[in-house]
Amino acid sequence: MEEEDGRRSSFPGPPTDPMVTALLTDMYQITMAYAYWKAGKHNDRAVFDLLHRKNPFGGEYTVFAGLEECIRFAANFRFKKDDISFLRTVLPPTCEEGFFSYLASVDCSDVEILAMPEGSVVFPRVPLIRVEGPLLVAQLLETTFLTLVNYASLVATNAARHRCVAGKDKMLLEFGLRRAQGPDGGISASKYCYIGGFDATSNVEAGRLFGIPVRGTHSHAFVSSFMGFDEIVKRSLPHAKGGKICEDFVHLTQLWLRQMQDKPSLRSYFHETNPSELAAFSSYALAFPTAFQALVDTYDVLRSGLPNFCAVALALHELGYKALGIRLDSGDLSYFSIETRKFFRLVEKEFGVAGFGKLVIVASNDINEATLDALNKQGHEVDAFGIGTHLVTCFSQPALGCVYKLVEINGHPRIKLSEDVNKVTIPCKKNCFRLYGREGVPLVDLMIGENEVQPQPGERILCHHPFVESKRAYVVPTRVEPLYKCYWAAKPVRREKLPSLEEVKKHCMEQISAMRSDHLRALNPTPFKVSVSGNLYDFIHHLWLSEAPVGELQ
Amino acid sequence: MEEEDGRRSSFPGPPTDPMVTALLTDMYQITMAYAYWKAGKHNDRAVFDLLHRKNPFGGEYTVFAGLEECIRFAANFRFKKDDISFLRTVLPPTCEEGFFSYLASVDCSDVEILAMPEGSVVFPRVPLIRVEGPLLVAQLLETTFLTLVNYASLVATNAARHRCVAGKDKMLLEFGLRRAQGPDGGISASKYCYIGGFDATSNVEAGRLFGIPVRGTHSHAFVSSFMGFDEIVKRSLPHAKGGKICEDFVHLTQLWLRQMQDKPSLRSYFHETNPSELAAFSSYALAFPTAFQALVDTYDVLRSGLPNFCAVALALHELGYKALGIRLDSGDLSYFSIETRKFFRLVEKEFGVAGFGKLVIVASNDINEATLDALNKQGHEVDAFGIGTHLVTCFSQPALGCVYKLVEINGHPRIKLSEDVNKVTIPCKKNCFRLYGREGVPLVDLMIGENEVQPQPGERILCHHPFVESKRAYVVPTRVEPLYKCYWAAKPVRREKLPSLEEVKKHCMEQISAMRSDHLRALNPTPFKVSVSGNLYDFIHHLWLSEAPVGELQ
Repeated sequence: MEEEDGRRSSFPGPPTDPMVTALLTDMYQITMAYAYWKAGKHNDRAVFDLLHRKNPFGGEYTVFAGLEECIRFAANFRFKKDDISFLRTVLPPTCEEGFFSYLASVDCSDVEILAMPEGSVVFPRVPLIRVEGPLLVAQLLETTFLTLVNYASLVATNAARHRCVAGKDKMLLEFGLRRAQGPDGGISASKYCYIGGFDATSNVEAGRLFGIPVRGTHSHAFVSSFMGFDEIVKRSLPHAKGGKICEDFVHLTQLWLRQMQDKPSLRSYFHETNPSELAAFSSYALAFPTAFQALVDTYDVLRSGLPNFCAVALALHELGYKALGIRLDSGDLSYFSIETRKFFRLVEKEFGVAGFGKLVIVASNDINEATLDALNKQGHEVDAFGIGTHLVTCFSQPALGCVYKLVEINGHPRIKLSEDVNKVTIPCKKNCFRLYGREGVPLVDLMIGENEVQPQPGERILCHHPFVESKRAYVVPTRVEPLYKCYWAAKPVRREKLPSLEEVKKHCMEQISAMRSDHLRALNPTPFKVSVSGNLYDFIHHLWLSEAPVGELQ
Repeated sequence: MEEEDGRRSSFPGPPTDPMVTALLTDMYQITMAYAYWKAGKHNDRAVFDLLHRKNPFGGEYTVFAGLEECIRFAANFRFKKDDISFLRTVLPPTCEEGFFSYLASVDCSDVEILAMPEGSVVFPRVPLIRVEGPLLVAQLLETTFLTLVNYASLVATNAARHRCVAGKDKMLLEFGLRRAQGPDGGISASKYCYIGGFDATSNVEAGRLFGIPVRGTHSHAFVSSFMGFDEIVKRSLPHAKGGKICEDFVHLTQLWLRQMQDKPSLRSYFHETNPSELAAFSSYALAFPTAFQALVDTYDVLRSGLPNFCAVALALHELGYKALGIRLDSGDLSYFSIETRKFFRLVEKEFGVAGFGKLVIVASNDINEATLDALNKQGHEVDAFGIGTHLVTCFSQPALGCVYKLVEINGHPRIKLSEDVNKVTIPCKKNCFRLYGREGVPLVDLMIGENEVQPQPGERILCHHPFVESKRAYVVPTRVEPLYKCYWAAKPVRREKLPSLEEVKKHCMEQISAMRSDHLRALNPTPFKVSVSGNLYDFIHHLWLSEAPVGELQ
């Protein structure tokens, strides 16, 4: 009974995107499945590692994401009748009928999936996910797992890097939907940027699906759609505290603009502002008196947008409301944000409106890590950044190269050799640990064989570079963290509960905070060390020599 | 009755991805919708242009894609009950109830969508889609349309560029699923690469959804999963023509390997091959005797993979089958493909197997436009390229910046100014034409106001650069092609039928073939000219001056 209860509570729902089916895979997985079945190898016990070989963006860390969707995929993995009918049409007619009936029976009930918690800070070569199960089904998970992890981890890492440069006190808004790789690309971006440290998204559907806060005001088109004041028919606005009603709010904004024009300190900024822009702002404020935020660069930030915004904000203030602030979407964001802040402060001083100087300045327009860094160096007054294209497309490196490698079959370790040492995989079913030093700082990740004795705090442990014999070091860890948890297993009681999105985000933020800052910095970061036990080292090299062909110089 | 019939036949199905809902949009579209409604402007008649400002990848053309999904989205555009319940939670509580009931009634029945046919070769500034309708709903389409067009056009263009470099006779296979922006990114990539000139995909789900041919054989893991010959239990293979049965096909491949080793011409290539690789290949051939294709670089291409492949292929040949060929996934593809071809020819000669020299060589491994170009220059013997990461992530430029701009409201033209002339939009509801010269070569695109007289073949037409007065030229076109068709309108009879994927691909290939090759080349391509009529030119500049604030030098 316990097991049955466990199964009910720990059985994950289907993947978020209904397009994630058993057919969302490469054709060669299907042909291999047939060949394994035909050879009677489909139930060989296989262990695959999903790992990355290089951190993205020239950095020295990666944020691991996409695990929940992998587990949902595995838990619900089945070839439906329609799937199998389609496969019949793409496999050669020589394929035997028995295969298709076998395929209809395949699921992940005999598969075990260990993984690092989603949101973990991870390093090359240390597997993120370890899949153990019948060869045929463990192989079939490859492409979908890679599809679900590669982009998720890439964009979560990109978000984390933006957060590191922007600093903890800035608000970061993900605005990338329109530039993403189609609909689901946009939805994935919103989810994984949130994990990586963003505060909110513009994507309404992502808000609904994942509970991420959504943000947005208006575009240039809204401003351009207004020709003048005449078209605003409904002009009344009740006071914030109730009671009185201002019958012509539009007129009130015009009065405030004139009052501003009368102040010599403000007059140096502007003469005549664009009236259709003022009409647009007034209209927007009538719609959102409690949440007035305006895009001020449709015509001219300092000569039109900013004074128009302030006129409307002052009118709102007279009626007991508080405006939110402005958004800048073009030009020199350092200059305009600083000038805007000065102007806000002047308005606060001239009209005695407490807090006006601190209105929020949002900046968008092709922002990336480098822009944030440059803005920090130049100085700026931006409170929140809206980041789209560069964030979601991962412009500076749009692909993460996670791979999925066979490391053991029927208890025999397998190695994938390559002339490029970086591409050699570490064989064996492994356990992985993070060793911490004083003050809880992570020192090194250590991979050991599944059956080796686990490292203990306070013990002196010799950690070997996986491939370079001379690189090794003793570590006496203050803490030893096992990196894997079991997220999927035959026995439901063994399955770790999938954490909520908020928990994943929190884990990610804690992991990043715990890292030494030189691993995180953008310029020349220090690589984090990844090592293997002495036993595993010897084993790798024994296997390597036995598999590698001996060359012949001619 | 005619109309009802028309409606049934021309009403497009829902978007392919069920995640494309009315909420797959930026929050500011929703806040603007409310503000338009509150101001009573929601039914203002608006015209929006969807356009790009710059061709991607340093090129001078773009392939327009994503239209079908846009039309499906528009045709099925509705806020469902659940959508509206969610919107209540993200809009301020001050929003009036009437808005939500209004929103539930909104659809695209009063919207007209003109567009260039999907697959067209297009140029910056000439709008790809023209949306006319009530301001609120036309505005609400913005983000989703951009999401559906931006990546689709970018990746179709990327595919077309790869096709141009590879040449018409090579087979191009899209292998990008695992590196795409999640599941739908992968599916979109497969669809739009096919439009841009790819022949097939590895993505099984894309094959099912769109009828794209799927391809795939096996991975390195398949080879690594074999330890030796012992594990192959079922070894019999009937002759291709029926009748006799070969009882031990594995033994037959070993015999052929020995025969090859006995030929002095082949002996210079290899000594002992990896036996577990031969076991894997034999096993794969037993599963796919009519479609044997092997990945030959798990251990060593020339010393192991290639001879092992040939041994199995020769064994198959003895039984009346014909092998397909090999895949190379690492190393110097020029060298290995040339050596492989030599080896194939030697085998053909030594064993008198007609056609063996022409077996297919597929190459994959981080291929991009530049690699293809370099391979062409070095010389190679590759017949088919499998391209993934660089293709689907559009590595060299992962975003296309299509925008959606208001150009007219209630009959009044609107212009969006910018200090960057490239960002100034061309106002007015427009018609667009492509003017052709002798031999059917496209000369120039021409935009004119909706009510201007349309250009005629044989007429002398003065075409103006949109922004530079001195740049203008006379054209006497031999053919004038109206660029827009109506894909969505209130009256179903006016709606153009959406073409099939094959028709879109064909249109794209024809459009590219018709272009002058200097517009298409990778290095220093010639820009294709885009122009406006004299009337439109005057109008733009009149509006520009009236809207732009006059600066003051201090």
